[in-house]
Amino acid sequence: MMADQVSKRSKKTGLPPGSLVHIGERKVEKTRITVIDYDGDNVFEKEVETVEECFRFRETSTVTWINVDGVHDSEIVEKLGSHFGLHPLILEDIMNTSQRAKMEDLGDSIYFVLRMTESGNDDAKIATEQMSLVFGKNFVLSFQERPGDTFDPVRERIRKGKGRIRKMGPDYLAYALLDAVVDDYFIVLERLGERIECLEDELVADPRRQTLNTIHELKREMIFLRKSAWPLREAISRLERAESPLVKKATGIFLRDVYDHVIQVIDNIETYREMLSGMLDIYLSSLSNRMNEVMKFLTIIGTIFIPLTFLAGVYGMNFKFMPELGWRWGYFLIWGVMVAVGISLLVYFKRKKWL
Amino acid sequence: MMADQVSKRSKKTGLPPGSLVHIGERKVEKTRITVIDYDGDNVFEKEVETVEECFRFRETSTVTWINVDGVHDSEIVEKLGSHFGLHPLILEDIMNTSQRAKMEDLGDSIYFVLRMTESGNDDAKIATEQMSLVFGKNFVLSFQERPGDTFDPVRERIRKGKGRIRKMGPDYLAYALLDAVVDDYFIVLERLGERIECLEDELVADPRRQTLNTIHELKREMIFLRKSAWPLREAISRLERAESPLVKKATGIFLRDVYDHVIQVIDNIETYREMLSGMLDIYLSSLSNRMNEVMKFLTIIGTIFIPLTFLAGVYGMNFKFMPELGWRWGYFLIWGVMVAVGISLLVYFKRKKWL
Amino acid sequence: MMADQVSKRSKKTGLPPGSLVHIGERKVEKTRITVIDYDGDNVFEKEVETVEECFRFRETSTVTWINVDGVHDSEIVEKLGSHFGLHPLILEDIMNTSQRAKMEDLGDSIYFVLRMTESGNDDAKIATEQMSLVFGKNFVLSFQERPGDTFDPVRERIRKGKGRIRKMGPDYLAYALLDAVVDDYFIVLERLGERIECLEDELVADPRRQTLNTIHELKREMIFLRKSAWPLREAISRLERAESPLVKKATGIFLRDVYDHVIQVIDNIETYREMLSGMLDIYLSSLSNRMNEVMKFLTIIGTIFIPLTFLAGVYGMNFKFMPELGWRWGYFLIWGVMVAVGISLLVYFKRKKWL
Amino acid sequence: MMADQVSKRSKKTGLPPGSLVHIGERKVEKTRITVIDYDGDNVFEKEVETVEECFRFRETSTVTWINVDGVHDSEIVEKLGSHFGLHPLILEDIMNTSQRAKMEDLGDSIYFVLRMTESGNDDAKIATEQMSLVFGKNFVLSFQERPGDTFDPVRERIRKGKGRIRKMGPDYLAYALLDAVVDDYFIVLERLGERIECLEDELVADPRRQTLNTIHELKREMIFLRKSAWPLREAISRLERAESPLVKKATGIFLRDVYDHVIQVIDNIETYREMLSGMLDIYLSSLSNRMNEVMKFLTIIGTIFIPLTFLAGVYGMNFKFMPELGWRWGYFLIWGVMVAVGISLLVYFKRKKWL
Amino acid sequence: MMADQVSKRSKKTGLPPGSLVHIGERKVEKTRITVIDYDGDNVFEKEVETVEECFRFRETSTVTWINVDGVHDSEIVEKLGSHFGLHPLILEDIMNTSQRAKMEDLGDSIYFVLRMTESGNDDAKIATEQMSLVFGKNFVLSFQERPGDTFDPVRERIRKGKGRIRKMGPDYLAYALLDAVVDDYFIVLERLGERIECLEDELVADPRRQTLNTIHELKREMIFLRKSAWPLREAISRLERAESPLVKKATGIFLRDVYDHVIQVIDNIETYREMLSGMLDIYLSSLSNRMNEVMKFLTIIGTIFIPLTFLAGVYGMNFKFMPELGWRWGYFLIWGVMVAVGISLLVYFKRKKWL
Repeated sequence: MMADQVSKRSKKTGLPPGSLVHIGERKVEKTRITVIDYDGDNVFEKEVETVEECFRFRETSTVTWINVDGVHDSEIVEKLGSHFGLHPLILEDIMNTSQRAKMEDLGDSIYFVLRMTESGNDDAKIATEQMSLVFGKNFVLSFQERPGDTFDPVRERIRKGKGRIRKMGPDYLAYALLDAVVDDYFIVLERLGERIECLEDELVADPRRQTLNTIHELKREMIFLRKSAWPLREAISRLERAESPLVKKATGIFLRDVYDHVIQVIDNIETYREMLSGMLDIYLSSLSNRMNEVMKFLTIIGTIFIPLTFLAGVYGMNFKFMPELGWRWGYFLIWGVMVAVGISLLVYFKRKKWL
Repeated sequence: MMADQVSKRSKKTGLPPGSLVHIGERKVEKTRITVIDYDGDNVFEKEVETVEECFRFRETSTVTWINVDGVHDSEIVEKLGSHFGLHPLILEDIMNTSQRAKMEDLGDSIYFVLRMTESGNDDAKIATEQMSLVFGKNFVLSFQERPGDTFDPVRERIRKGKGRIRKMGPDYLAYALLDAVVDDYFIVLERLGERIECLEDELVADPRRQTLNTIHELKREMIFLRKSAWPLREAISRLERAESPLVKKATGIFLRDVYDHVIQVIDNIETYREMLSGMLDIYLSSLSNRMNEVMKFLTIIGTIFIPLTFLAGVYGMNFKFMPELGWRWGYFLIWGVMVAVGISLLVYFKRKKWL
Repeated sequence: MMADQVSKRSKKTGLPPGSLVHIGERKVEKTRITVIDYDGDNVFEKEVETVEECFRFRETSTVTWINVDGVHDSEIVEKLGSHFGLHPLILEDIMNTSQRAKMEDLGDSIYFVLRMTESGNDDAKIATEQMSLVFGKNFVLSFQERPGDTFDPVRERIRKGKGRIRKMGPDYLAYALLDAVVDDYFIVLERLGERIECLEDELVADPRRQTLNTIHELKREMIFLRKSAWPLREAISRLERAESPLVKKATGIFLRDVYDHVIQVIDNIETYREMLSGMLDIYLSSLSNRMNEVMKFLTIIGTIFIPLTFLAGVYGMNFKFMPELGWRWGYFLIWGVMVAVGISLLVYFKRKKWL
Repeated sequence: MMADQVSKRSKKTGLPPGSLVHIGERKVEKTRITVIDYDGDNVFEKEVETVEECFRFRETSTVTWINVDGVHDSEIVEKLGSHFGLHPLILEDIMNTSQRAKMEDLGDSIYFVLRMTESGNDDAKIATEQMSLVFGKNFVLSFQERPGDTFDPVRERIRKGKGRIRKMGPDYLAYALLDAVVDDYFIVLERLGERIECLEDELVADPRRQTLNTIHELKREMIFLRKSAWPLREAISRLERAESPLVKKATGIFLRDVYDHVIQVIDNIETYREMLSGMLDIYLSSLSNRMNEVMKFLTIIGTIFIPLTFLAGVYGMNFKFMPELGWRWGYFLIWGVMVAVGISLLVYFKRKKWL
Repeated sequence: MMADQVSKRSKKTGLPPGSLVHIGERKVEKTRITVIDYDGDNVFEKEVETVEECFRFRETSTVTWINVDGVHDSEIVEKLGSHFGLHPLILEDIMNTSQRAKMEDLGDSIYFVLRMTESGNDDAKIATEQMSLVFGKNFVLSFQERPGDTFDPVRERIRKGKGRIRKMGPDYLAYALLDAVVDDYFIVLERLGERIECLEDELVADPRRQTLNTIHELKREMIFLRKSAWPLREAISRLERAESPLVKKATGIFLRDVYDHVIQVIDNIETYREMLSGMLDIYLSSLSNRMNEVMKFLTIIGTIFIPLTFLAGVYGMNFKFMPELGWRWGYFLIWGVMVAVGISLLVYFKRKKWL
């Protein structure tokens, strides 16, 4: 929930900037660190126990990818940060899991933070977590809040040497990770799209109170998704245009590609939002339509029988002198009158198109 | 449907960028390739069986237009791509039929992708397909999802040598194709305009539940059309301002012209959207108007007869001692009272303008 | 109607660009060409029969204004175009009467197209027509769809030598024509303003179904007017900032003045739109207010008499043993009870402020 | 009224640009001209009878402020204009009292036009008038539509030599006048704020039809106020950034200050607009709330008594063989049944939370 | 209240610019001045009685932070201002507590004004006060309207020498104060977030009239909060980009950090606003849903009993000749008919899904 994101911040109020305090829900018990070190020829992969184990990879000319699952342990983050020369504010951002997507050029490394959707989650609710990315001359650090399978295809490509990933540098690896995150957005959107289509059928077939709630729930999901995707667009655009030697020319077209994907994500979110608004209108007007129908039925039944009941009441009066009561055919006559009144009212309604 | 576009993407999640996998609905059985090769003097036209057949045209100084109907066959796309030196990401974009319109300057060729409307389709639903365009020094490649007659007039002009098309280069041919696509948008808008006008008459004459559905359906069509046209505007603008030697000065005014047309398309879409919103308001307020009318009728019938029925009820009571019951003219008197009450209520309503 | 503008375009689909086909309604039988040739000292004015007659004025150093009423005759437009060296696309724009206002610098002449309102028209409906303007070193061509009196004051000023018009060049004449067109917008706005004020009085005095229709009609007129005025603003701004030798420095302040007027036109349109939206809200809420009133009346009549009728019904029952029926004052007692119930309900409603 | 502003323009249609015709309501009988001439040491102040009287001040090195109340007299405006070298279009703008706020750099003088509120007016309606300001090397001309007390404090400061006004040039005087005008906006906003607060209390205590009208009236006032303030913001910003030698460096910070004030005015207008929209929503939903309440009451009374009346009706039937009628306790039994039905319905409603 | 802010301004109308008059509510009895003077090694802290006492710190090379609680005393503000060389307009801004957040580069000092939330306040209502900040080569002046604990953590860090604050200059101190203010916004947002979540639960469980009022109240709080936060964003951005030697390079990343926080604040405000709008929609549609339900119940009860009552009325008539009345099983037959009619109506409603 969004309110959580905000509320957690207050834990830190008053501390000096750069204080390493984890802000956000703790989603994992123990921090897990995996290292993948590769160049065109070799791949080395290991899950390390202590942070220090992965320091030795820094000196090598190979590309080193250190992935950290769980950002609540300030000691680990601090050690990594000081070894790789990161500014305390950056470390603070990594541990404070309510960041807006942004890109920061730190000179000898580039910091990128964004929200990733948790595609493994099958709930109706979309869950997001924060992913931080730091890449420098020959290393990439990635920080997730909990372990996930989003990056598995990238790992697979590195292991098997598929595509150009093994031949290119850390900027390409960073791109590959961003691309994997954006692809997850498409999966989430796909699921939402299916729910919207179901909802649409339901709306036509049988609109109920529940339908309204679902529409509003989906609208809110869209608000949150949009809140994640919009700043991402800007951050990737800044990364593409960054004049840093860390982002090689050849990576530019790939970044432009992932940028296009983010634009598509945003486009789809906006379209879904407009569709949901339209559905809300349909729902509400179908409600008032139905009420209209009920109303008209009431009018017809009511206005037909009210005069007839009145007539029956008249001849139920106990006056001594009511000549009609004594007539031979009085009773049948009154039935005739009643039927005539009823039919003429029906005809009137028919003509007014109320029936 | 839009949801389809999104959902198909997930097929590709996890593959390395540049992987050639067709994403989208397969709209044609077999890919069909036609070649038109021309210069000011000669035209050569052929439907080729294999991709390789059209490679030989590349060396010639004539303009070669290779049109491919069907983009699901990765082998064909790959061969063409490698022969004409296209980046794998571009080939990926060609095969992934959910692109947003964009223009990419590749140095020795220019890539343009957009959505074209399928004007041949007579359905109420607007169908769109993706059209990719690559043009270089002396060639133009166009990729459609299915065969269509949009480009027939261009072919005709090349065959007959009408206009300036035979005397100008591939950039002019690319312009001609874009222009044909944009013209199709006008045809679709024309059809929508007719439907909106019909709807308007219906709205005045006899608004029904169905009217509301049609308004919402048209609104949604507008959302999709706008989603296709807006990025097209930007892409054409970038093409016009591209400082590529591939786009000759003389073609500039033509591109500006097609840009103006796209603006007109967008203008019309926005106007239609505003008109549809206005129609929705009219529909809803006409509903509540009608309800008001029904309501008032009910009030009048009800409030007139309710007191009268009460009176009749009173004299239907069986008390032993009810002096009025014994009066000689009691019955006629009570009729008189009832008529008087009824008329005075009618007058009251008339004065209140409820009648 | 707008739908017409769009639909007419399809006539041209498939023709090469620059094909001269008239698109739009043919508003005049025969094209009428008038020439005014003047300098500081002399004025010559003539209605010519053939296009060729006006060619000879081109060589003179005097300012030549050729006004063409009716743009359906492609032969005339073509001859004029080739004589004055206009690009085929410009001629196409002149004949296609669904252009958006724009300004095009053609090097040795400047093309300006806009929509002018037909102020002569007294209908409630605002009619617009397309006006094209081309001016070069010593000539001004103006194309209208039908003859009108908008330019009469300009002609008069040329004939009488009033103001500075005779002493200045074709750019000033072009400005004067633009200014006349913009002035016509004010006349149309004035008429609309009067209608809105009438509507407002009607809304307060006696809102009816018709009022709603008029509001929506006016809203639509505003949509169309805005669609004409917005691009005009941009076009005039571009003309003012054009670095063409054809637009002299001294004309700048006049163009800025006409630009200010267009801004004022747009301002007024937006204000009217907001006022109409407000009126729609008032109308709708006055409807529901009225319904409320009717509803409350029904409630009061109904809820007062329903219990009373029930009581009467009770004593109309035919049970053998109903002690009250035999009471001496039973009938009068029951009347007392009924009156008491009625009054206490009235008091209750009064307190609830429902009366 | 706004419609007036527009309508008056048509009087001028067809006249050459720069024609001096007064457009707008004539708010004062006779034009009144006052001159204040001052430097650090001396002040001279006079109400002159003829325009020519104030010409002699131009040559002096002192700052001359000529204030003109009433702009309908074209002769006076023309004489002043030609003496101070103003362009005819500027004079036209001065006399046409429907200008949008703007700033025009004329080289040796600066023209500024804006709408000022008439704070002296105690009406609910906000009245505005046009104020034109021209200042040059050593003079300031100000044109108002009618005499007002807005500038009295400035005059007082000049007379008494308070503040820095006597030591600074005409640009500072112009700033002081602008500042006085903007201060008046605050007074008007204050009055509006009070009315909004009253309205709010009324809305909570006792919303009536009149409340709705007042909300809409205030909304319209806001539209007009915003229409005056928005262009003022831009005009002052342009004045501040003008690179004219007439605007001295030292005056910059003062202009920035008045600019901040205008932003604050706009901010407040927007906030009030949002508050009024919120109030409209509250009003409308309180209406439908009330209707709901009435409705529920009707339902309860109706649905409780309708079945009971039916029962009474049943035992009022005159069938020969109705066993219950002969029962000893039949009457009391039926009463029991009726009470039971009534109570169970009440309980049902209570449970449904309709009561 | 906002209306207060506006109204107070009129007190100053007519005074020369730079006049020191306190505008706004007087929130504290006596102005309180505290001085903290520090460098890397020493800290000196004192609450001074007279302004003059703190002048001597100016000459020292240490950083001097003078905090003033209460801005109503023009004498104190003036003395400080003249000693630290502030422009009269800046002093005016400090005393006029209705400023919009802005940043002004004064050459040898930088002025920053913003609204801070009063986090100490536990009321539902958000209170804000104005905070002014001036910092120069070796001093920082801060002006608050009333004493608060927002800056206590900063003081603590200075005293304890925690973080880098003691080693850096006045620009860092200014940043630290800004950061503390922005952190307070998060606390307020957290409180609002909790209230919104409560409201949401209430909305689902039991929507009442009060709920609507709370939604509108929160919406208004958001309007005011947004009005404070938006200009703050711009002001901080300008401070970050200021090319003043007073803002050192090393402080840049901290300012960017606080800027990111402000963006997050605005993001959250906008999200809350959208959520509140959605809640309003839910509330209103749940109202009409409930009304629908009530309505349908009425229809069912009414339309079932109305015909039955009519039938009972018919056989309550007193005609002499009514054959059915004499039938042996007439009474039971009529009961049968009534039950049949009732059941068939129930079935009809069931089928129409009205039940």
